[in-house]
Amino acid sequence: MASAPRWVEAINKALSHPDNKGKIIYQVATVDASTAPHARSQVHRAFMNPEGRPDLPLLVTSTDVRTPKVAQLRVNQRVELAWWMEGSQDQFRISGFAHIHPSPAAPGDASQPTPIPAEAAALKALEATTFDWEAKRLEIFNKMSPSMRASWCVPRAPGSKLDSYEEQKKWPREVPLEPQNGEDEKNLEMAKSNFALMLIEPISVDWVELGIQPNRRTIFTREGEKWTEQLAIP
Amino acid sequence: MASAPRWVEAINKALSHPDNKGKIIYQVATVDASTAPHARSQVHRAFMNPEGRPDLPLLVTSTDVRTPKVAQLRVNQRVELAWWMEGSQDQFRISGFAHIHPSPAAPGDASQPTPIPAEAAALKALEATTFDWEAKRLEIFNKMSPSMRASWCVPRAPGSKLDSYEEQKKWPREVPLEPQNGEDEKNLEMAKSNFALMLIEPISVDWVELGIQPNRRTIFTREGEKWTEQLAIP
Repeated sequence: MASAPRWVEAINKALSHPDNKGKIIYQVATVDASTAPHARSQVHRAFMNPEGRPDLPLLVTSTDVRTPKVAQLRVNQRVELAWWMEGSQDQFRISGFAHIHPSPAAPGDASQPTPIPAEAAALKALEATTFDWEAKRLEIFNKMSPSMRASWCVPRAPGSKLDSYEEQKKWPREVPLEPQNGEDEKNLEMAKSNFALMLIEPISVDWVELGIQPNRRTIFTREGEKWTEQLAIP
Repeated sequence: MASAPRWVEAINKALSHPDNKGKIIYQVATVDASTAPHARSQVHRAFMNPEGRPDLPLLVTSTDVRTPKVAQLRVNQRVELAWWMEGSQDQFRISGFAHIHPSPAAPGDASQPTPIPAEAAALKALEATTFDWEAKRLEIFNKMSPSMRASWCVPRAPGSKLDSYEEQKKWPREVPLEPQNGEDEKNLEMAKSNFALMLIEPISVDWVELGIQPNRRTIFTREGEKWTEQLAIP
């Protein structure tokens, strides 16, 4: 069986470094319809791969389907994320395609997954193996904390206008998986419908090791379905 | 006199939080000629503003003039950076224009500063006050550590192919400001010629406070030369 590219091991090794505890936040860059860049912090939830294809890893993260990034990804699916692990001084820059899998209950067109680009071999492989996207979406949703889950119950798109902090007082603070009452049930349904799975399929990874002297840099590139690596000038 | 927008104070306050010690690294997103996004970590060096115009702040960072980001900025000067301050759980997303001021000694076209967009009021104001770009560039260069300065002495563009780690052994490890010999002098000249000043002019700032409950979000927008702020849904 094909094996995972070496950069996955490098990331896992860096994550296990005691000084990198909790360093599961990276900054994801996208491009909007007017070709302006955007960047925001997201939480790395897991790696995954199509069954039997550890050589085609994907990163699992999530979003609110109403955020501008989803609209941006419907226009341009290219992303690059910068993952800075301060403790070990490692930087991983991961470039590739993002795929949004929303809830089938999201309103109107928002329920449509983003199209899968022809070059996105891992996403294509998932599609070919009739991967259960919805089960994966719910698996990640169910792992979230009740307070995190409440963040998908804001009444309008994140980033949209708020008249006063007073309004926030009416929003749920926690959305438990086991509703205790009708209010909890309604909130759970809303959170579940706004929560979208976001998968990132890397096609190149640029790893800089600033923690060692002289610094090292390795660039991993996928051509077709094959990963190659090349030393580079830091 | 016009005063600094409130987000500058918010960043400085977050930076002074004891748990945010050393959090001067942000991830800067750019767009390349094929409209793919890119993101990398950069070090925040300082704020600055045109004389008498604290209402038009800029962020000071730097780069090697040979990096792909400089080529990207020559095509598209829009940038957005995400500044995550883990200790206080503040995120600042700063969107605007980047300006590269290279060394006049950089080879050929690389010595040309990037053009200043008409909407870039702060950069325009600097230009109008005959700001001494080169003096600023050297001020920042001179503040760098000797080992940081050595990073601009790599023989080819950062990111380009390296045949083996053996080659690195010939590169200088330190470039002191006061050369002790001809080798030091040559290295200082090379570092100085590859070092470019990078200024970022913000036109909108999206501040999310995840350290307080309920979370807060404030979006600052510059229209013309005037900053306004609006509460937003986190």
